Amino acid sequence: MSDISALWEAESIAVIGASERPGALGRKPLDYLLRYGYKGRVLPVNPRSPEILGVPAYPSVKDAPGPVDLALIMVSAERVPGAVDDCVAAGVKLAVIASSGFAETGEEGARLQAEVVAKARAGGLRIIGPNCIGAVGYENRVLATFSPLFGAESVPFEPGTLAFVSQSGALGFGAASLALERGLRPGWVVSTGNDADVTALEVLRELAAVPEVTGLLGYLEDTPDIGTLRELAGSGKPVALLKSGRTEAGGRAAASHTGALATDDRVLDAALRGLGIVRVDDIDELLDVARVFESERRPAGNRVAVVTTSGGSGILAADAVEAHGLELSALEPRSKEALAEIVPAFGAIDNPVDITATVLSDPSLFDRSLDVLIADDTVDIIVAAFCVMAGPDVEKAVNALSRAAEKGGKPILVARTGADFLAPDAPRDLREAGLPEYPTPARALRAAAALWEVSRPRTLPDAPRPGTVPGPGAEATEPELKRLLAEAGVAVPKGRIAEDAEDAARAVTEAGGSAVLKAVVPGLLHKTEAGGVEIGVTADTAPAAYARLAALGGQVLVEELVEEGVELIVGVHTTDLGPVLTAGLGGIFTEVLDDVGHRLLPLAPGEGAELLAGLRGAKILAGARGRAAVDVAAAAELLHKVGELVQDWPAGFALDLNPVRVLPKGAVVLDAALTVDATASDAPASDAPASDTPASDASEEAGR
Amino acid sequence: MSDISALWEAESIAVIGASERPGALGRKPLDYLLRYGYKGRVLPVNPRSPEILGVPAYPSVKDAPGPVDLALIMVSAERVPGAVDDCVAAGVKLAVIASSGFAETGEEGARLQAEVVAKARAGGLRIIGPNCIGAVGYENRVLATFSPLFGAESVPFEPGTLAFVSQSGALGFGAASLALERGLRPGWVVSTGNDADVTALEVLRELAAVPEVTGLLGYLEDTPDIGTLRELAGSGKPVALLKSGRTEAGGRAAASHTGALATDDRVLDAALRGLGIVRVDDIDELLDVARVFESERRPAGNRVAVVTTSGGSGILAADAVEAHGLELSALEPRSKEALAEIVPAFGAIDNPVDITATVLSDPSLFDRSLDVLIADDTVDIIVAAFCVMAGPDVEKAVNALSRAAEKGGKPILVARTGADFLAPDAPRDLREAGLPEYPTPARALRAAAALWEVSRPRTLPDAPRPGTVPGPGAEATEPELKRLLAEAGVAVPKGRIAEDAEDAARAVTEAGGSAVLKAVVPGLLHKTEAGGVEIGVTADTAPAAYARLAALGGQVLVEELVEEGVELIVGVHTTDLGPVLTAGLGGIFTEVLDDVGHRLLPLAPGEGAELLAGLRGAKILAGARGRAAVDVAAAAELLHKVGELVQDWPAGFALDLNPVRVLPKGAVVLDAALTVDATASDAPASDAPASDTPASDASEEAGR
Repeated sequence: MSDISALWEAESIAVIGASERPGALGRKPLDYLLRYGYKGRVLPVNPRSPEILGVPAYPSVKDAPGPVDLALIMVSAERVPGAVDDCVAAGVKLAVIASSGFAETGEEGARLQAEVVAKARAGGLRIIGPNCIGAVGYENRVLATFSPLFGAESVPFEPGTLAFVSQSGALGFGAASLALERGLRPGWVVSTGNDADVTALEVLRELAAVPEVTGLLGYLEDTPDIGTLRELAGSGKPVALLKSGRTEAGGRAAASHTGALATDDRVLDAALRGLGIVRVDDIDELLDVARVFESERRPAGNRVAVVTTSGGSGILAADAVEAHGLELSALEPRSKEALAEIVPAFGAIDNPVDITATVLSDPSLFDRSLDVLIADDTVDIIVAAFCVMAGPDVEKAVNALSRAAEKGGKPILVARTGADFLAPDAPRDLREAGLPEYPTPARALRAAAALWEVSRPRTLPDAPRPGTVPGPGAEATEPELKRLLAEAGVAVPKGRIAEDAEDAARAVTEAGGSAVLKAVVPGLLHKTEAGGVEIGVTADTAPAAYARLAALGGQVLVEELVEEGVELIVGVHTTDLGPVLTAGLGGIFTEVLDDVGHRLLPLAPGEGAELLAGLRGAKILAGARGRAAVDVAAAAELLHKVGELVQDWPAGFALDLNPVRVLPKGAVVLDAALTVDATASDAPASDAPASDTPASDASEEAGR
Repeated sequence: MSDISALWEAESIAVIGASERPGALGRKPLDYLLRYGYKGRVLPVNPRSPEILGVPAYPSVKDAPGPVDLALIMVSAERVPGAVDDCVAAGVKLAVIASSGFAETGEEGARLQAEVVAKARAGGLRIIGPNCIGAVGYENRVLATFSPLFGAESVPFEPGTLAFVSQSGALGFGAASLALERGLRPGWVVSTGNDADVTALEVLRELAAVPEVTGLLGYLEDTPDIGTLRELAGSGKPVALLKSGRTEAGGRAAASHTGALATDDRVLDAALRGLGIVRVDDIDELLDVARVFESERRPAGNRVAVVTTSGGSGILAADAVEAHGLELSALEPRSKEALAEIVPAFGAIDNPVDITATVLSDPSLFDRSLDVLIADDTVDIIVAAFCVMAGPDVEKAVNALSRAAEKGGKPILVARTGADFLAPDAPRDLREAGLPEYPTPARALRAAAALWEVSRPRTLPDAPRPGTVPGPGAEATEPELKRLLAEAGVAVPKGRIAEDAEDAARAVTEAGGSAVLKAVVPGLLHKTEAGGVEIGVTADTAPAAYARLAALGGQVLVEELVEEGVELIVGVHTTDLGPVLTAGLGGIFTEVLDDVGHRLLPLAPGEGAELLAGLRGAKILAGARGRAAVDVAAAAELLHKVGELVQDWPAGFALDLNPVRVLPKGAVVLDAALTVDATASDAPASDAPASDTPASDASEEAGR
């Protein structure tokens, strides 16, 4: 038993602050442990009562007969440090601090919380909370909680295979109650409150290791730790997260142009997408996805067949297939032939397959059409959509569907748009047959999309390596950065620093007779605006151009002109989740339309191409508006090489490659700039102060 | 009683095809009428039984004692024409044909359907169906249906104020059963099947006139008739529609460039938005919106205050406020001062207002904080979000909320994330207090957004005038179209047709010494590609340019050069819903990003500006990327003038103004082209064959 797993495996539970007073919060866990038949030892702790609810009580947890696997602390905030001391003294390894009055109340509470955590860490005690509602492990009846949920007259309490961890206790147990009401079966519900020591994500990771768990659900308010996220994804168990605070301003990374485009929420989206973790937007969606996580059937692809008894449901299902990024299978020709033999003339054998209400008089229609869809290799997921059906009709449908699911191994989801009072046994029958059920086709398809998201074959990206390679300093100039890029295999324009005016003319000749001259002045951010760029310079005009640029106080770079192409803006900056690569098309796409993609580094194979393909303006790269296509593969490769180059640099940098020009063949970095937050290499990136100064201006190279 | 309102007011109902055989469909309506206590006369029609279920039966509806207000026809398809003849002979005004075997089965069925409709129309009989499941009026217990819904053991059957009309019978009664299960109270449920005579929309319009109806819900598969939609919107009752088939290819209007951008689905979106009709995407959303239509409280604006007992719910609510285009009120300073006195220190007085679980011990917290929000003029809608709450706690909350709703007149929506088994009376108490309830904050806010959508003050656009003014013919040339535009007050470049080469030189001089020369050749679609445009022509080069262009076989237009600006593409084409104006930014915005807006003509005041402001690239007009802003007001005015000009033209035309250049001051149409579908002026636009030839090319003027 790990420390944390005591939340569901504890063989002895101390309730510090236990009380017999009716209505007292300190009574509820005892009530629940006794009511639901906890098999372990219950140890009420209360200095004033020798016995509570017929169970012997102890003045301190130190007096309770050991070992104590789990302590639930429910005393007022100011008495929590003493309770923690007692737990440490008693050799307890895990305490749930339900008490509030800590960081959530302000500075003083935060200080008290820090004190408690320090005491616990020194004493080898892990803490869940404070300011939480506790935890429940259904199998062993570990009810270390005061949630009113378990005080209701009738609570459906069968242990299931879903694990749900929520920072918010109220929302967590509220959602858990809805789950029970909807026939879902959670087996573990944990609230972690302030996440002062153990985080919600750590509990999820721990639960992922429990063999019985088939799906993991989380509600998070804090930005998750990327290392723990990776481990969670690495478990192979399906995970869905509801992370609130989408609309909070990001803003931290405004120090670079690309960084400013990457809000915290978008970066988290990118991270979760990369890891195959489903992100949901609402409790309802979380529960709908949970339902599909109860089954272990997985689709081999994203092609859906819809079988329905109602034309209307079929059309709604087809709309939802498209809306959720799935595909409606075209069906194999032999399937259509077979269906033509089976389906009544006024039905439909195209997908959606409408077997019509005739199935009510001839239930074999269901079996025979499902057999066809199961045998069809272009079908990965089957959605059965039906409307009002009374009890016996549903029974026949469930039999057919359940046989088909067993036989075909393909996931089958059911949309039953009809009230339970029409078929009271339907929810149970469907659940027992392992057929996830939804009230509407749209909700079934949304869950199917989540199922595909967690089933899609993917190479999980490696964890980032520790940033041990010293990156270039804040004073790194454009030529230095370009040298690093070139060493990493990234194309840059040919060119060199000119020694003097005459050498500039020579360099222009070397560059082909017409070149770009650029001032290289550390700290000169807006080169073009400052007159630091001269385009189309010839050997004749080079000396004068050199003189003008050199007067800006630095060196002068002479570079070849690069042929026309499509311009990208590419950047990497560091965030709490690690280094993030951002890329988009230049010009209005980034400046007006915010059309950029993000991926956490290191990139998994194919992620660069996937990022570019996901841009709204992707058609431009493929040669829209009568222009030739450019070398998208080279652009994607460039993203991978840039990622490879910078991923070992220490946190706190923001690199802007703006623009990168994608050519008919190849892709070249035309300008490069770096900002480094000196405070960040020592401190976590999250503490780095933001700067409002963009490191580079997207229009800088516009005239090049 | 109108003909259609017999569906809910009939005082006598004939059931043609009535049967006593258990399980027969023809028995169900009789069962239901008797079971639910229909007060009118039930008239079973069956040639072989003198009595059915104890009620006297008649061999034909002609033999039944009149008057017969409503006939429900349930005989097999081939016997329907005879039944219709009988109804006509008996003077029946409305028949519901439940039988299937008509247009839904193919050509033969379509012929039979046409025959039946023709007979009925000739005989003054209106028809609902065929291929429908019938209709129910709850108040009068008119159950002209065989839906299994009403055969269930226990059906909650209290008449309510919601009217629901569905083309799909299965989906309609399925959704109605979910509505009942969720505590909603429909008062009218009508399925209209094939809509062969009376359409679903006509029934909705009829129901909008029923005083007791507070909200109208529809499920449609066919494109709705715009005239009926306008009348429905004009009723002032809130309407929500689920229209399936979003993903069907539009394609009809591919005859023009802008037309090709306007899919049927987008045009419908535009029409509904203009009329203030809510469009939903799923049955669940339809029912959620219905719940808010049960109350008649309306918000004065879109500013939301969230009051919560759980920080988590508050954050989720705030996320949803933004996601649904509502605003989180900043609250008045005096409100914050007042809340600071009321809310515990560890709560939050910013919006969302977190009164914390302390409210469980001090319920006055609820009353006092709600009083503050009700008095706050920056709050239009209140959303109360709470989680697990046991029965008595909910009761207190409901009391406070219901008092507040009465007092303030502001809509209050409740998100209660907790199972009903925790507070079994809560759904009823909330319903009785007129407080719409949702399981999650996101769903409450989605409904709040729909409520604002139907409450927002709007000028309904006028109905289009009949197309009596003859529009220009298909052969109308660019100068002719520009003359029409100029007469309508739309700016076009100064210019004229050159008589000959010498005159061309004079015209260039008149135009300021440098001009554009364009070939005017009817049928020459791609002028630029065909070498039909010469830019920057001077008096010297004019004769040669004239000769070259004249050789293309038509006239030569000489026009002044127009200063730089931002280019729009603007067009009008006719659709089943009437003439549609489409506008977007030129170039990649339309060609790559599909960034266009649509509005039905005639435009209501302000719609032109609203369309432009809604473009993703709207920032470009406001002067993004360091460029000066252009005259958006002039562009909006141009849209209105163009709409005014063309709205009386007969159906079948497609006008492309491409580009329109928006200048720092003013907006000018640089090119204009028209295609006319000659078959369309006589026939309805929907029957017009599509053409694949674009009338104009967006890049045509790119080099101008």
